[in-house]
Amino acid sequence: MTHVIDLVADLGEGFGAYTMGDDEALLDVLTSANIACGFHAGDPRIMDATVRHCVERGVAVGAHPSFPDLVGFGRRAMDLSPDEVRTDVLYQVGALQAFAAAHGTRVRHVAPHGRLGNLVATRQDYAGAVADAVASLDRSLIVLAQDGELADAARARGLRVGIVGIADRAYRDDGTLVPRSEPGAVIHDERQISERTVRMVTEGVIRSAGGRDIPVACDTVLLHGDTPGAISLAHLIRRELLAAGVAIAPLTDVLDARSGVSGNGA
Amino acid sequence: MTHVIDLVADLGEGFGAYTMGDDEALLDVLTSANIACGFHAGDPRIMDATVRHCVERGVAVGAHPSFPDLVGFGRRAMDLSPDEVRTDVLYQVGALQAFAAAHGTRVRHVAPHGRLGNLVATRQDYAGAVADAVASLDRSLIVLAQDGELADAARARGLRVGIVGIADRAYRDDGTLVPRSEPGAVIHDERQISERTVRMVTEGVIRSAGGRDIPVACDTVLLHGDTPGAISLAHLIRRELLAAGVAIAPLTDVLDARSGVSGNGA
Amino acid sequence: MTHVIDLVADLGEGFGAYTMGDDEALLDVLTSANIACGFHAGDPRIMDATVRHCVERGVAVGAHPSFPDLVGFGRRAMDLSPDEVRTDVLYQVGALQAFAAAHGTRVRHVAPHGRLGNLVATRQDYAGAVADAVASLDRSLIVLAQDGELADAARARGLRVGIVGIADRAYRDDGTLVPRSEPGAVIHDERQISERTVRMVTEGVIRSAGGRDIPVACDTVLLHGDTPGAISLAHLIRRELLAAGVAIAPLTDVLDARSGVSGNGA
Amino acid sequence: MTHVIDLVADLGEGFGAYTMGDDEALLDVLTSANIACGFHAGDPRIMDATVRHCVERGVAVGAHPSFPDLVGFGRRAMDLSPDEVRTDVLYQVGALQAFAAAHGTRVRHVAPHGRLGNLVATRQDYAGAVADAVASLDRSLIVLAQDGELADAARARGLRVGIVGIADRAYRDDGTLVPRSEPGAVIHDERQISERTVRMVTEGVIRSAGGRDIPVACDTVLLHGDTPGAISLAHLIRRELLAAGVAIAPLTDVLDARSGVSGNGA
Repeated sequence: MTHVIDLVADLGEGFGAYTMGDDEALLDVLTSANIACGFHAGDPRIMDATVRHCVERGVAVGAHPSFPDLVGFGRRAMDLSPDEVRTDVLYQVGALQAFAAAHGTRVRHVAPHGRLGNLVATRQDYAGAVADAVASLDRSLIVLAQDGELADAARARGLRVGIVGIADRAYRDDGTLVPRSEPGAVIHDERQISERTVRMVTEGVIRSAGGRDIPVACDTVLLHGDTPGAISLAHLIRRELLAAGVAIAPLTDVLDARSGVSGNGA
Repeated sequence: MTHVIDLVADLGEGFGAYTMGDDEALLDVLTSANIACGFHAGDPRIMDATVRHCVERGVAVGAHPSFPDLVGFGRRAMDLSPDEVRTDVLYQVGALQAFAAAHGTRVRHVAPHGRLGNLVATRQDYAGAVADAVASLDRSLIVLAQDGELADAARARGLRVGIVGIADRAYRDDGTLVPRSEPGAVIHDERQISERTVRMVTEGVIRSAGGRDIPVACDTVLLHGDTPGAISLAHLIRRELLAAGVAIAPLTDVLDARSGVSGNGA
Repeated sequence: MTHVIDLVADLGEGFGAYTMGDDEALLDVLTSANIACGFHAGDPRIMDATVRHCVERGVAVGAHPSFPDLVGFGRRAMDLSPDEVRTDVLYQVGALQAFAAAHGTRVRHVAPHGRLGNLVATRQDYAGAVADAVASLDRSLIVLAQDGELADAARARGLRVGIVGIADRAYRDDGTLVPRSEPGAVIHDERQISERTVRMVTEGVIRSAGGRDIPVACDTVLLHGDTPGAISLAHLIRRELLAAGVAIAPLTDVLDARSGVSGNGA
Repeated sequence: MTHVIDLVADLGEGFGAYTMGDDEALLDVLTSANIACGFHAGDPRIMDATVRHCVERGVAVGAHPSFPDLVGFGRRAMDLSPDEVRTDVLYQVGALQAFAAAHGTRVRHVAPHGRLGNLVATRQDYAGAVADAVASLDRSLIVLAQDGELADAARARGLRVGIVGIADRAYRDDGTLVPRSEPGAVIHDERQISERTVRMVTEGVIRSAGGRDIPVACDTVLLHGDTPGAISLAHLIRRELLAAGVAIAPLTDVLDARSGVSGNGA
């Protein structure tokens, strides 16, 4: 049978006169986009243009809500209450929905950004807050997450979940990521990242830092566009996936193909 | 026949730890609310609570988008391009729509705030930008405006328009407002304001500063909650309208009753 | 011998169209002011007016820097790096210094606000960052703090420290405050607060929650202006201190009188 | 006799994770820097690092205050009151002064940015507001401006003025710039810009669009770092000035050499 996978990256992360990453080049590779909503990056013009470009290229639109911290690019933890997280997420996703509507499309998924994105994997209260926001807003929205609290909270509310595969990070034997503070946490070799991606998608396993093949779910692969070589790596991954017979399709199609069962479609 | 009118005021204009006006008291009087969307006032918690209170009281929710100027409360002109106005309005209305959806309602109207609200009455480019934003987002949204460019632009795009009646401002014989910079521009006498309101609603006329009765359209009456005596004046106006046999109803009902013909239903 | 004490409160905590507290009434009572610098509250107009009012009343001007969190009023922890704390403090104190210079005075002290103010009492890295900022900017600035890491860090850099006495909070036997989360943490009885203040200033002791008289340093007493009854309590404290023969003077005079030895002058 | 000129450019115009221009490369060419103060660009980390780099390279530090419009990069007109302009300028210059003090230097000049910089050349009220801010803060500060209202207002208050020469813009016969909206307003040829600069500095004239040599004052030449080729052009101008026997020195030295007479020292 055919494997199918979504390719996603963060887009629209400029602000005003500032640019960030090479969105134009990434749009050729992606099937979905996490679009900044103004709290860590993005402004109404950038959101409007990014949604328009996504529609023109057939890339599905997702929201990338963040802590309210423009100067810190959403990378700094903030001690918000769960209700502050919930309402900040509603505000941001709603703002993006307006641009989606204006361009004749819909927001398809929500993927928390940066430090908020890290915290929802382990903080049950924040995970519940994000899932509550999404569930109250539009139950057809997919929650994008790694395995963890947010994925659990979303499923518990009957929301569809797309699991993000991270091929350029080392895994422990228990399936968790090696923290960035430890040596070898990030994999830089293009060939190695590409091969790990293909195995993750076609076999549902990834080689751990300890040398074991561990099972790993993956509905979408996170690509990057803001580092040197990122675009060529993104193209390489896409080519290798296609060469391995993998179909590349927007996340909704991936999840539909899996009949609502998140994780690898093998 | 029965006259029908909507009563509207600006709500949710606090920010963070700050409060503005007496929303709680106003909610007893209103049928519609212009809710701040975070650019001149309002934050996600306040927007959430204000929408919830409106739903609990049966008050229709409207968006009150502004220039992006929190420190200036949206009262200072900013030389934005029309596209900046359009995208800023989309962002703000979309954010409010999320809170409406979360509370099981819809945003019913859009009423530009402050200096933007002044400028759309006379600047065709800004009026077109606001009307384009609304038309691209949700064609069932009503545009709230005084007679002027925005009302024209909205009608030209097939949008419904609700004309705001201003009973505490002096009118010239040509139907335009006496500028605030001139003496007598603002009327402070409660009894006089109330009587002007009733005549505006039931007879479709207002006495000009020159002493003539001039025709004036009015689908909704703008009340205030942030000045001493404002709440008692709001109650007085409501009582006097009811005593005059006027039905008070949300704007959509008012416009439906007028069969799509904006202006006074007499 | 005569006891001498400074009376300080947070001023200028409005923003744009918003007001907070009754600064005008407090200015009659104070000898020093912690003035918001724009990150949690305050804007250039409010800072300008507050400094001017302080100069007119002979109230010494101090800076009240905060985490950059206007919507959270600086009350939410943010995981800033020490260098981010240091540079944020420099920015804010410098901004206030400009208004001080424009009105012919100088900033006399620095008192971190809100959550930052809490954290510098226990986080050595943040305490060092604030003390480094002050030491690099103007070595004549006094650091206002409770006993704790910031006071230690400031002294270690040769800066003068003013210890803030908190009379409306319960103390444990070890001299630390009872956390707000515990019952009885905040004392509400005006008479009791006033008596505790007088004993703290004249005897250098405060009665702990456990009923023991414990030694407590105090160079300045923190008053409030933003709660019902706050102004009358502030006046009561001032009257009782004067009735007890205490001299009330700006913090620099207090520290000078103590010959550079911070803590109680008894 | 020897001609002497300052070379200045806008620095520190990044924000948070965003960069703008090539400050590092410009620092080799400049003798003065206009440093963003957080309102249109710049944040406390960037201000701190930029001032430090200037001190390390012997580049004089100047403040580049703006309208409060981060998303618009200070390029959009805002209808501020003169008092709002005055207090916004005080706030920004004061913030930069803190970083200057922390690095053992002083802010030497103030040069309004972007749209504010345009408006102070023609709006007497804004010019007076900026000059009042500077005069009340530090009378040793130099005001950087083109000939116009700000230069006049600064001189009227006894402040020193440095006139900025613009070599890459076309002049009319009356000495005013050809507006950007007209063809030929901006000169792109590197060789031509360099030659115009040398003549402006050594002869005090510039060739107008109409072909006449018109007198033009110039204490500092404005260079750019944010466009392709900008750095090589900056180096070319510096080389050609040196080859023409012009001494390049910080603005204070330039004005001292001119004995307080602004304009060309020939």
